[in-house]
Amino acid sequence: MNSFGRNFRITSFGESHGKALGVVIDGCPPGLTIAGADIQPFLDRRRPGKGPLESPRKEPDRVEILSGLFRGRTTGAPLALMVENRDVREEDYDELEGIFRPGHADYTWQAKYGIRDHRGGGRSSGRETVARVAAGAVAARILAGKGIKITGRILEIHGKRDPDAMAREIEAARDEGDSVGGIAEVLVSGCPPGLGDPVFGKLDALLAHALMGIGAVKGVEIGEGFAAARMKGSKHNDAMTRAGFATNHAGGILGGISTGQEIVARIAVKPTPSIAKTQRTVNRKGEEVSVSIRGRHDPCIVPRILPVAEAMVALVILDEFLEQAKYREPAKSGAGGRG
Amino acid sequence: MNSFGRNFRITSFGESHGKALGVVIDGCPPGLTIAGADIQPFLDRRRPGKGPLESPRKEPDRVEILSGLFRGRTTGAPLALMVENRDVREEDYDELEGIFRPGHADYTWQAKYGIRDHRGGGRSSGRETVARVAAGAVAARILAGKGIKITGRILEIHGKRDPDAMAREIEAARDEGDSVGGIAEVLVSGCPPGLGDPVFGKLDALLAHALMGIGAVKGVEIGEGFAAARMKGSKHNDAMTRAGFATNHAGGILGGISTGQEIVARIAVKPTPSIAKTQRTVNRKGEEVSVSIRGRHDPCIVPRILPVAEAMVALVILDEFLEQAKYREPAKSGAGGRG
Amino acid sequence: MNSFGRNFRITSFGESHGKALGVVIDGCPPGLTIAGADIQPFLDRRRPGKGPLESPRKEPDRVEILSGLFRGRTTGAPLALMVENRDVREEDYDELEGIFRPGHADYTWQAKYGIRDHRGGGRSSGRETVARVAAGAVAARILAGKGIKITGRILEIHGKRDPDAMAREIEAARDEGDSVGGIAEVLVSGCPPGLGDPVFGKLDALLAHALMGIGAVKGVEIGEGFAAARMKGSKHNDAMTRAGFATNHAGGILGGISTGQEIVARIAVKPTPSIAKTQRTVNRKGEEVSVSIRGRHDPCIVPRILPVAEAMVALVILDEFLEQAKYREPAKSGAGGRG
Amino acid sequence: MNSFGRNFRITSFGESHGKALGVVIDGCPPGLTIAGADIQPFLDRRRPGKGPLESPRKEPDRVEILSGLFRGRTTGAPLALMVENRDVREEDYDELEGIFRPGHADYTWQAKYGIRDHRGGGRSSGRETVARVAAGAVAARILAGKGIKITGRILEIHGKRDPDAMAREIEAARDEGDSVGGIAEVLVSGCPPGLGDPVFGKLDALLAHALMGIGAVKGVEIGEGFAAARMKGSKHNDAMTRAGFATNHAGGILGGISTGQEIVARIAVKPTPSIAKTQRTVNRKGEEVSVSIRGRHDPCIVPRILPVAEAMVALVILDEFLEQAKYREPAKSGAGGRG
Repeated sequence: MNSFGRNFRITSFGESHGKALGVVIDGCPPGLTIAGADIQPFLDRRRPGKGPLESPRKEPDRVEILSGLFRGRTTGAPLALMVENRDVREEDYDELEGIFRPGHADYTWQAKYGIRDHRGGGRSSGRETVARVAAGAVAARILAGKGIKITGRILEIHGKRDPDAMAREIEAARDEGDSVGGIAEVLVSGCPPGLGDPVFGKLDALLAHALMGIGAVKGVEIGEGFAAARMKGSKHNDAMTRAGFATNHAGGILGGISTGQEIVARIAVKPTPSIAKTQRTVNRKGEEVSVSIRGRHDPCIVPRILPVAEAMVALVILDEFLEQAKYREPAKSGAGGRG
Repeated sequence: MNSFGRNFRITSFGESHGKALGVVIDGCPPGLTIAGADIQPFLDRRRPGKGPLESPRKEPDRVEILSGLFRGRTTGAPLALMVENRDVREEDYDELEGIFRPGHADYTWQAKYGIRDHRGGGRSSGRETVARVAAGAVAARILAGKGIKITGRILEIHGKRDPDAMAREIEAARDEGDSVGGIAEVLVSGCPPGLGDPVFGKLDALLAHALMGIGAVKGVEIGEGFAAARMKGSKHNDAMTRAGFATNHAGGILGGISTGQEIVARIAVKPTPSIAKTQRTVNRKGEEVSVSIRGRHDPCIVPRILPVAEAMVALVILDEFLEQAKYREPAKSGAGGRG
Repeated sequence: MNSFGRNFRITSFGESHGKALGVVIDGCPPGLTIAGADIQPFLDRRRPGKGPLESPRKEPDRVEILSGLFRGRTTGAPLALMVENRDVREEDYDELEGIFRPGHADYTWQAKYGIRDHRGGGRSSGRETVARVAAGAVAARILAGKGIKITGRILEIHGKRDPDAMAREIEAARDEGDSVGGIAEVLVSGCPPGLGDPVFGKLDALLAHALMGIGAVKGVEIGEGFAAARMKGSKHNDAMTRAGFATNHAGGILGGISTGQEIVARIAVKPTPSIAKTQRTVNRKGEEVSVSIRGRHDPCIVPRILPVAEAMVALVILDEFLEQAKYREPAKSGAGGRG
Repeated sequence: MNSFGRNFRITSFGESHGKALGVVIDGCPPGLTIAGADIQPFLDRRRPGKGPLESPRKEPDRVEILSGLFRGRTTGAPLALMVENRDVREEDYDELEGIFRPGHADYTWQAKYGIRDHRGGGRSSGRETVARVAAGAVAARILAGKGIKITGRILEIHGKRDPDAMAREIEAARDEGDSVGGIAEVLVSGCPPGLGDPVFGKLDALLAHALMGIGAVKGVEIGEGFAAARMKGSKHNDAMTRAGFATNHAGGILGGISTGQEIVARIAVKPTPSIAKTQRTVNRKGEEVSVSIRGRHDPCIVPRILPVAEAMVALVILDEFLEQAKYREPAKSGAGGRG
């Protein structure tokens, strides 16, 4: 389960303090022009150390394309993308080795596997999302060629909706040695109708899987989402007219299939679990200990999760776009074509 | 994508007005004692026509086990479960044939497949969930044998949290020819730590997939869910003590892996899209028409979705329980064993 | 693993002496006209009891389509096909209950699952292939619409290649209470170039999987097959000319991808393991016993395996045909289309 | 379909003349001690340039482990293994760019994808098997810990079974500018009974898939294989005694499930398609041309395929071993365990 998707299928590898992170993309359509320079801006948006409110870990996050290209174009072979870890400080984590940090996967990973790479969270680190963002950049490029665009925005930080107020909340949290969460939204425009499967592969179910699969995300909603639970049917239903849908309470998906309208997904992000404030926890021996986490962490992870969420949405939309190809009228001249 | 799960894998078939609905369960552990009588109560909870606030469609929903049993026990072969459709009234839908009902999959199914069974929503009918509930009943039985229990409850109907007030909201909606939605919660107790995969197969991501894949569900949250977005890290993190976790804001899942605490998932359910009130829409020719849906529908679908949500959660938990078996110490005497 | 295929995905259920056998087809293209009458002839070819050299079990094998059709056409929803078991004689197997029949899955099923339905071999009976043939009939119909045709023929029975001599070998085996095997060939004509994936999903690998997955098949070869091991490269390579390939030693597949030529696959079928001749074996208690199997069995299974092999080949070819659709130029007007 | 396996799942990437080849292993059990030095000997066996009868391409094939290890042990995170391409001579292939080499995937890859990396066969090069051998080495190590051993041997080269005669056949072919094929066998000892699924996931079907998926393999057989087609049931059936099976005609698999005996699989390998002798073919424009392939090629590929075949068998056996874990009695103390 380090793979995601069925047509544009990605397999991710790497951990916070290993040699490299990377992703293998299987099912990338042939003939696509792509270079590291097309992927790099997406990684740069996700990269730490860009501002005073972000983790000061200095990672250039330079992507290298190991395979799958011939003269700059994809061939149908898997694209392997790799990013080396550079600013690795194992010693930052020495004192945390035997300790289960609250709000982290430390205890559960140990319970599952019986062995744990404690350095920066190992595989369960947010650094793993480098792979997702790199793959999502390729997906976004293909989708852009089809007129489909994915954009994200922050709606709320610690309950505040004004940008200045949001920044103040993050600063205040940092100063207190604490952290805050928030809500973000991802929008898909230009998506044709017909994507998604009507039963277990509903487009909204796939998006929920993709988004809830990002660390720190605790809730996902589509269209009106939880607000729909307080609406009446006569209000929530989107009337149709000759000109199309009159409203978009559904968020661009009906019965699990895209309507052709804008797709609207929102995520709830919990406050960063790594905080400087002293917390109670236990170590592997079961002894109670206090812990104050002074590594390189963001007091609010929402801004850095945004490109990850966009990437996951891009992966889902492209995957379903390719799936839907099966229902297109087959070319007359056979399966292949010499292109 | 009419299949769900990787170890306890179900494949569902059937539509609202076809001959039968059913499910094939692949991966059911051998040696389990099971009979139709063990599954029937689950279907009875989901069944329509039980009260004045539910669709009056009269379906006995008798489950028949077609395969997979030998002297009342499972053999490792697939279990096929079938429920015949009896109270089929195609004529109820004659006038709706060419019309795209607002809030339904009518338009999107047509856009996807170019052909549509309009009778009762065809495959996109809620009646498809008979298959899920039947399979979930088998899963719940296996989980019960391991001390794992799934329970659901309604938290809110149209904004009301008091049971009497909830009932009044539903009655009022029915009387107005309208409908209401609500919020429900599913809890898992007795779940061991270690279930779920840390990256794309996070337990919360799988639950989100499973629950958002139920028609009418527009939001899913785990633990504090959207409320976490307004909390500070020092509040949201669950401290650990010698006696275990002090709180359960996380909802029983950390880093995508179960903690051993109660798992808490909530869903937002939209108001039933089929309402008697007149709505504007278009037909297949693109002409604007008015529609009032007078078939057999529930003014509030939350109570009938509850057993479906429990079933989906049971399927996910069992699937991951079996997955986790790979990490158990292998039996000394070889893979098989004569049991 | 009771499912096969990734695009046209079938899930099979049922055992020799259960209520019914069946198959759910997921991914059947919408808009296909199909009825039981289109499937029945395929089942009739596979059916037992047609001649003196076949098992006298009398099964009408009437297929019933439970779901997936609307006014005789597929809708994109799963097709569920069911065949009831009628001529079930459990008592024939009473004395075999605790005995591991040589050449059968009795011992291994017991070792795997710890419980075994001994009646007619249960799930490991050749009767399970009813499901494959029914699904293969649907696949063959779709392929026929694309000009692709699957045909099979018997090449050899017990070393004899003349039809009369083959029949004599079978009769002689029957009279001795013994059985014989043989070699059969399946040909695919009209297959476009480009089907199959170049690495693990090679078309020949998928065919090998499909064909070796039929009970009693012990070998699979493509094109020259084992004879290629004794040829030189200059002889085995198929030269290309303006008019196409000059020869077809490769059997229509190069590098795992179809060439557009006829695809040629051959299977080696072992002699039927159920024989009247006395054999030594053990029972579940580990005691040595003699066994003479006097149920209803074919002295040579090759003729009845032929339609199964054709069905499996049809499933593979269609699956890859749909897979290849992803590389077709996408329709200009979006994913859907109102058809 | 650059992935293989469902529990120990590998994803391969890279091409003959790209930057690197590699493989990501998902599902590797945690706690395994492994280092590059454990994998290197397997790659060295496969490596070219070791003798006068092999391609003189000089590749050190040094494996690097990019992820998945903590202090030398696996953690449950994906293992990514990489081998850089060093001795890349693009210019060797310049004159072949537009030409479809007979017996190669050139024409079919072009037909499938419409674009082709002609340098050394690109992704369809035998060099891709570096990834398989590296992953197979990890699998073999795990299996060895369970007492399961995979060994291969060459049975026949160009019809000769004596080692000296085999070598002479290869030399003669090389001197003629031609090539020869042969037959190899892979044996699995120590495999417990119970591995494999009885229907589509038969152990022999999975082995056939794995082995036929190696380039140049044109036939696969199990146990007696094609010889079984000429045997009688009374001869082919393996009698059972108190001491176990009396014979092993079945090749260690009955009904698709391992018997606990030695597993015996054989493959037919075609003569290397790259030969110096002049051959007729066409180029992309459809013009007839002559071609003589003077790159760095083996006159007989069987010796270098052997470690690949062993690797594929190891992958299948381990995958099914882990699958079978689901049927083991669950540990009493919950899913996890602190190991």
